[in-house]
Amino acid sequence: MNFRKKLEKNIKKNNSLLSIGLDPDVEKIPEHLKKYKDPIFNFNKQIVDATYDLVCAYKPQIAHYAAKGIRGIGSLLKTINYLAYTYPQIPIILDAKRADIESTSRLYAKEAFDVFNADALTVNPYFGLDSLKPFLERKDKGVIILCKTSNKSAGDFQDLKISSDKIPLYLHVAEKVQEWNKKYKNCMLVVGATWPEELKKIREIAPNMFFLVPGIGSQGGDIKQTLKNGLRKDKSGLIIHASRSIIYASDKANFAITARKEALKLKENINKYR
Amino acid sequence: MNFRKKLEKNIKKNNSLLSIGLDPDVEKIPEHLKKYKDPIFNFNKQIVDATYDLVCAYKPQIAHYAAKGIRGIGSLLKTINYLAYTYPQIPIILDAKRADIESTSRLYAKEAFDVFNADALTVNPYFGLDSLKPFLERKDKGVIILCKTSNKSAGDFQDLKISSDKIPLYLHVAEKVQEWNKKYKNCMLVVGATWPEELKKIREIAPNMFFLVPGIGSQGGDIKQTLKNGLRKDKSGLIIHASRSIIYASDKANFAITARKEALKLKENINKYR
Repeated sequence: MNFRKKLEKNIKKNNSLLSIGLDPDVEKIPEHLKKYKDPIFNFNKQIVDATYDLVCAYKPQIAHYAAKGIRGIGSLLKTINYLAYTYPQIPIILDAKRADIESTSRLYAKEAFDVFNADALTVNPYFGLDSLKPFLERKDKGVIILCKTSNKSAGDFQDLKISSDKIPLYLHVAEKVQEWNKKYKNCMLVVGATWPEELKKIREIAPNMFFLVPGIGSQGGDIKQTLKNGLRKDKSGLIIHASRSIIYASDKANFAITARKEALKLKENINKYR
Repeated sequence: MNFRKKLEKNIKKNNSLLSIGLDPDVEKIPEHLKKYKDPIFNFNKQIVDATYDLVCAYKPQIAHYAAKGIRGIGSLLKTINYLAYTYPQIPIILDAKRADIESTSRLYAKEAFDVFNADALTVNPYFGLDSLKPFLERKDKGVIILCKTSNKSAGDFQDLKISSDKIPLYLHVAEKVQEWNKKYKNCMLVVGATWPEELKKIREIAPNMFFLVPGIGSQGGDIKQTLKNGLRKDKSGLIIHASRSIIYASDKANFAITARKEALKLKENINKYR
């Protein structure tokens, strides 16, 4: 099943727009997990087992694993395998922000879609279309392109106004991706919840596209504004992402139960404004 | 020793501005290497042993390894370890085009500088300054920021003119990096040899900075124009990068000798215009 169908189906099944980040940090995970052979995988497994019926997707961020070398990459592979076999209905978004010249992007597509077997990947638009083609051509996969990122310095380049059409770079990216999507049909955009006004403008440009929205929770984005400005007409079209506020809600032995409580609260809070 | 000093020293020692890409492709490497336990490492080792006195740096591109999963990552670690112990004078540029929000970039910095122990890393500017800080703050390391990339679609976003100062995005990136470098002193820019006129403009903005210049060789960039438009006043300041045209010059048993011949020819060709 292609990514978009899998996503739509699981949004309905779980009645949820919430995506949870599987971003384990050995310094933050509960002490008692360290007795396991692979504490990172064990942490992820417990989070997933406690929240699988509350999410539309899971999004592991690859740097959290790569920073630990080969052992970390092993934990990511193990996590994705566990998810794929135990909860095959849940789409997996690999967050890696890849892009390079075309021949190299082809290898990054292999990394994401063949080695890690992800359903979707985040990518960076700076190189332009040819660098994204190897991802876009994988029609069964989702390609989630950075548009307006959630961080404070996002405007350094993304907000620069383009003289030909007077719109900022991030809206120009949204317009281009909207155009590319007519052909490829597997594009999505990353839009930070920290920028609700910008989200509204991007929704006007791409009325039917899915947006991945980080920045709720630890980064301070507002749920009500995000839903108001970002929802499609069908009350869907957003993947609202949270990570630290859920997975590190407790560092006690019962961390997974606490994570479930936080996830349920956030899911319901999101649905309140749908 | 910090990256810049190491680089300057090795440029002088080998009288070379040439960087060679360690971008192994199992489908292109000589048949006889496949009997080795780690053909990729063995290929790299032979290339390095045959060219170490002709280069200013080596640049492994990480996707070539990551596309092969954990075994590939193992080959990259082994290659970098071999280089660091056998030729410690040669700087290693890890080409990975990383960037994310600040907390995640910190983990990418760990991946590049601690796990792989690279001397420098390529990064993507789309997120703005806060996302690059974790790299820039590693003062002993080099941070090589995409400016004008070598691919055909580079202009999709990089050439868009900014209305406030009428200059295109890539020159705005160059100006910002030139400004950041006053504080951090470890910035470099990626400028494709496929864009000689743009290279000239970027050199005007950043007269003392090092540029990493891909696009010579397989991608068709012109050496004479690159040197003419890109050299600093001290006849240095460029790392001219080639990969496929050298490492795949032959697929016979004597491939390393052929690679040396090609590297020597290119090095001398570059020096002719210095």
